[in-house]
Amino acid sequence: MGMRDEMLGLARRARQARPGLATLSRSVKDKALIAMADALVAGRGVLLAANKRDLDAARGLSSAMVDRLTLTDARIESMAEGLRQVAVLPDPVGEMERVWVRPNGLRIGKMRVPIGVVLVIYESRPNVTADAAGLCLKSGNPCILRGGSESIHTNSAIAGVLTRAAAAAGVPEGAIQFVETTDREAVGALVELEDCIDVVIPRGGKGLVKAIAERSRIPVIKHLDGVCHTFVDASADREMALAICHNAKVQRPGVCNAMETLLVHAEIAESFLPAVAADLEAAGVELRGCERSREIVSSMKAATEDDWYAEYLDLILAVRVVDGLEEAIDHINRYGSAHSDAIVTEDYSAAMRFLEGVDSAVVYVNASTRFTDGFEFGFGAEIGISTNRLHARGPMGLFELTTYKYVVFGSGQVRG
Amino acid sequence: MGMRDEMLGLARRARQARPGLATLSRSVKDKALIAMADALVAGRGVLLAANKRDLDAARGLSSAMVDRLTLTDARIESMAEGLRQVAVLPDPVGEMERVWVRPNGLRIGKMRVPIGVVLVIYESRPNVTADAAGLCLKSGNPCILRGGSESIHTNSAIAGVLTRAAAAAGVPEGAIQFVETTDREAVGALVELEDCIDVVIPRGGKGLVKAIAERSRIPVIKHLDGVCHTFVDASADREMALAICHNAKVQRPGVCNAMETLLVHAEIAESFLPAVAADLEAAGVELRGCERSREIVSSMKAATEDDWYAEYLDLILAVRVVDGLEEAIDHINRYGSAHSDAIVTEDYSAAMRFLEGVDSAVVYVNASTRFTDGFEFGFGAEIGISTNRLHARGPMGLFELTTYKYVVFGSGQVRG
Repeated sequence: MGMRDEMLGLARRARQARPGLATLSRSVKDKALIAMADALVAGRGVLLAANKRDLDAARGLSSAMVDRLTLTDARIESMAEGLRQVAVLPDPVGEMERVWVRPNGLRIGKMRVPIGVVLVIYESRPNVTADAAGLCLKSGNPCILRGGSESIHTNSAIAGVLTRAAAAAGVPEGAIQFVETTDREAVGALVELEDCIDVVIPRGGKGLVKAIAERSRIPVIKHLDGVCHTFVDASADREMALAICHNAKVQRPGVCNAMETLLVHAEIAESFLPAVAADLEAAGVELRGCERSREIVSSMKAATEDDWYAEYLDLILAVRVVDGLEEAIDHINRYGSAHSDAIVTEDYSAAMRFLEGVDSAVVYVNASTRFTDGFEFGFGAEIGISTNRLHARGPMGLFELTTYKYVVFGSGQVRG
Repeated sequence: MGMRDEMLGLARRARQARPGLATLSRSVKDKALIAMADALVAGRGVLLAANKRDLDAARGLSSAMVDRLTLTDARIESMAEGLRQVAVLPDPVGEMERVWVRPNGLRIGKMRVPIGVVLVIYESRPNVTADAAGLCLKSGNPCILRGGSESIHTNSAIAGVLTRAAAAAGVPEGAIQFVETTDREAVGALVELEDCIDVVIPRGGKGLVKAIAERSRIPVIKHLDGVCHTFVDASADREMALAICHNAKVQRPGVCNAMETLLVHAEIAESFLPAVAADLEAAGVELRGCERSREIVSSMKAATEDDWYAEYLDLILAVRVVDGLEEAIDHINRYGSAHSDAIVTEDYSAAMRFLEGVDSAVVYVNASTRFTDGFEFGFGAEIGISTNRLHARGPMGLFELTTYKYVVFGSGQVRG
């Protein structure tokens, strides 16, 4: 059987589960999620043995990669806990925000419904297998899971445990599909099956996401880079600005919502830049400044044009002095990735203008960009952070895994 | 200059208008819309002269095509009235449905913002030029308008009048771009400019829409077919069912929300089918029935498998007897286009099950499918009816021409 036929068979099984899963009651879904959590903990022996096979094959990978790949009892418990948390979240399916009544008496409601078959493509961390399966199940979407080749045995074992537990709890067969082959052609074949799959969510490096977006005939919810900025305005509270800059850069530099460029208002640059530079350099941050910044803090390296576009994901920060709010907004809209950007200011008009003028998924006043996250936003869980403009923007929780349909309650109305 | 460069220049001008238009005040937008309406009426001499050039070139087109293409004083007034109606609609930009407060004090709001540059590709009717320009302007989106070659002079004249009136009223230059060339390559070049254009809305035949969707690197909001069903349940009110069937099929058969297939519950088929057949045949409808239908109404032609998939857009109706609700739902989900489908029933459980089980953009109980329309839904206007599952589904008004961003009001919060 060719790769296309194999993937078509798998996608069709997911597709067949769509109507049953879309209308499955919340109580069955929640019981299944808890059964899946219990099954992961009960199956720890199988999971750790499978993980050992991946680890044995992982020689030559970086220690960071090996660490991400490694399962432990604590990590299995944490995956299970994630599923239990999803079980207690409200079910978005069937919710209607409002029903309005037309002059002819028609009552029209906008009802949340599952998107359909979700293809999740991810790398490395095996917990994504459980997270994605749980979120898709709760939101009524059959999922097709395609993990990285380095964790194939671990992911396969997790998916097997989850699938059996879900089926035993009454979830329609086919609702969770795992791609057992590591052949790269599998992804190429899957993203052309627009009649079976409704959305693709790739989570991984920029190269992976871009390659999938280019080839896919199915809508892709992209998770691309976060070139996030903090603009320290002339009126900023100095201590607050220092704390926010420190947090946004240092607390976890390797993630998409960490600050990559600091913009400082020229009026306070002479006093603020030395202070923020001292604090960040003490935390091990390498600073790359514009010419005006380097006249004030001579320890900075010279930034090039490329630095304004850079997502370092590391203890490196680009620094630029700007003449005012409008220059800051222009810089962010030009060089940024429209992910998360912050202003630190005590000036009401500047705050409102920044919120309006910065064209990003999340815009902050007086807070760290690190809060861009489904849990921090109160969604209870997240499947990722979208950099698309349409459908879902920013943190994606259960709500963003649904779409809507209109339901219309009539009493015999016809159009005149 | 090559076609790609020419289109890139045009798209860049639209893109440059994006920040200014996104933050333009409602009062300026509304005054501009009224000025545009007045300019159309004042410019009727220019518009009719341009239209005459298109009509002179239209020899050989069908009389229906020529009719759609023809401008008259009344049609110019109707375009102007459309713009005035958009002016009085609420502006969705900046609206927040709710703001929630996190335990750490962060206030998070989901704010409606324009999508960005909208490329509208359409055929024939020149009023789309004014409708699309008005809706995009009100929702803060620069637009690129590409009309059909048969109405190029008319569309160009309308766009010229609108662009000048908008600019004089304070709308940023570049906000309304019209593609003056009729070269087919222009569309191919435009849909590859994903750095300048944010969404493509094609309105026209299925062939046009599919070709654009296949080639586009930009998200496409498709307007594909409406294979709409009415299911007459065993418990239906007979007179209501007859009235709804008549309206859904006969009132305007050439549109996407007209009924194309009638499903009748077997229990009432013997009494209901002769009545509905008599009514529809008297209205000139050709009936194509399944075998069981034809045993009851012998005047029906035999339906083939293709008829269940057909969007006739004409006085033709496919008819099928089903054994019950579940068979009706299965038929609709299998053969339909997930556009608009209705049940006629007095049975509460059947109504609720139909609403839940039918996977369409609009699902009706006891009403004609003909209501799927932005005006009928109370949106005040529509740019079309989406057949996508994501972002916008069903009728699209001003709200659906926006997306959102999160705005976060902090007081110095950092992540722990």
